[in-house]
Amino acid sequence: MSVDNIPKIVISRLPVYLRALNRMVQNSQLVTSSHELGKALGISSAQIRKDLSHFGEFGKQGTGYQVEFLITQLRQILNLDREWEVAVIGSGDIGHAITRYQGFADRGFRVTAIFDSDPSKVGTKINGLEVQPADDIIKVLRERNIQIAMLAIPAEYAQSATDTIVEAGVRAILSYAPISLNVPDHVKVRYIDPVTHLQSMTFYLSTEDDLLTQPL
Amino acid sequence: MSVDNIPKIVISRLPVYLRALNRMVQNSQLVTSSHELGKALGISSAQIRKDLSHFGEFGKQGTGYQVEFLITQLRQILNLDREWEVAVIGSGDIGHAITRYQGFADRGFRVTAIFDSDPSKVGTKINGLEVQPADDIIKVLRERNIQIAMLAIPAEYAQSATDTIVEAGVRAILSYAPISLNVPDHVKVRYIDPVTHLQSMTFYLSTEDDLLTQPL
Repeated sequence: MSVDNIPKIVISRLPVYLRALNRMVQNSQLVTSSHELGKALGISSAQIRKDLSHFGEFGKQGTGYQVEFLITQLRQILNLDREWEVAVIGSGDIGHAITRYQGFADRGFRVTAIFDSDPSKVGTKINGLEVQPADDIIKVLRERNIQIAMLAIPAEYAQSATDTIVEAGVRAILSYAPISLNVPDHVKVRYIDPVTHLQSMTFYLSTEDDLLTQPL
Repeated sequence: MSVDNIPKIVISRLPVYLRALNRMVQNSQLVTSSHELGKALGISSAQIRKDLSHFGEFGKQGTGYQVEFLITQLRQILNLDREWEVAVIGSGDIGHAITRYQGFADRGFRVTAIFDSDPSKVGTKINGLEVQPADDIIKVLRERNIQIAMLAIPAEYAQSATDTIVEAGVRAILSYAPISLNVPDHVKVRYIDPVTHLQSMTFYLSTEDDLLTQPL
């Protein structure tokens, strides 16, 4: 399997499949189909079969997918059969929320370092984790070989913080700052921007005309 | 144009195009092409042309797209040629961060109400906005016809809060809670889950073998 031959958009859908499959396991469901998965996710069953076909044969015509087996396969493909350490840059509202986020558990990640440039925040604890000075980012990340970071700082500081963590060896960045970051080719960046999600819903919101026809 | 005939995935890409076009305007760029847009976004130019063709003809063969014109069209398609009021449910870390988020400005949204069930938080102010009691959600949202809400509360309260805001008339929900919500067909839901973004990057992160071949 060559990593470069698989479209980025396909890779971005695998975690969504994985989340849906984990929900099925929680509900004690053993078998599913591309049709059922697609219905739950708003994706065509043909698309799901095509996405998975990049990586092998995971189901049989007529019998569907074994849920646990497909989960194991997807976790292997996504390199989630280990736990990744994650550094959080910035201990403001978002940094706090990420560090305390319950959703990382059992999904491959653990926040093990948090940094801030504000001396009044350094030394405070979030979820048992001590906030370290921003000046120590390179030293700490290199020592512990941390390759993933989440950026939770204002837009104006985001690029210089990015340069620092890339120098420290980070190769995957999830940014909450509403600006586009420049990184070398070997570094991946994803953005969390609530506005693009909101904008994808306003398309469906009716305007005044429709409201008038709604039952009171 | 029938809303139902256009794949959800196409709609979800339009805000991403819009964001890229807005960056071009900031850089005083007047014209672009599907090729250039695609390169910036990691999407094929054919896909971009196909997505836009659902809504009409926005560019000419050989001359590309007028950036400002395409922005105006996309804003109209996405119902962003007005400002939408947004309610934030929960005034914890994430609720705080959302309410203070600078990225809403000029992109179609304004947070105009925030609620919390914790009496010690009610009456405090975030970004000049007073936190209101959760018991007032239905009254306030109905009075002001607020149709969009962002859920920033723990997973265990997310479904009951969803039921409340849907009863109040909300038809678009952006949830930060790591659970799947049940809503009636007329309500749209999007989820912000940092883990799925992280998982889409670990695919590209090399394992120990590769690390050994990296320069020190």
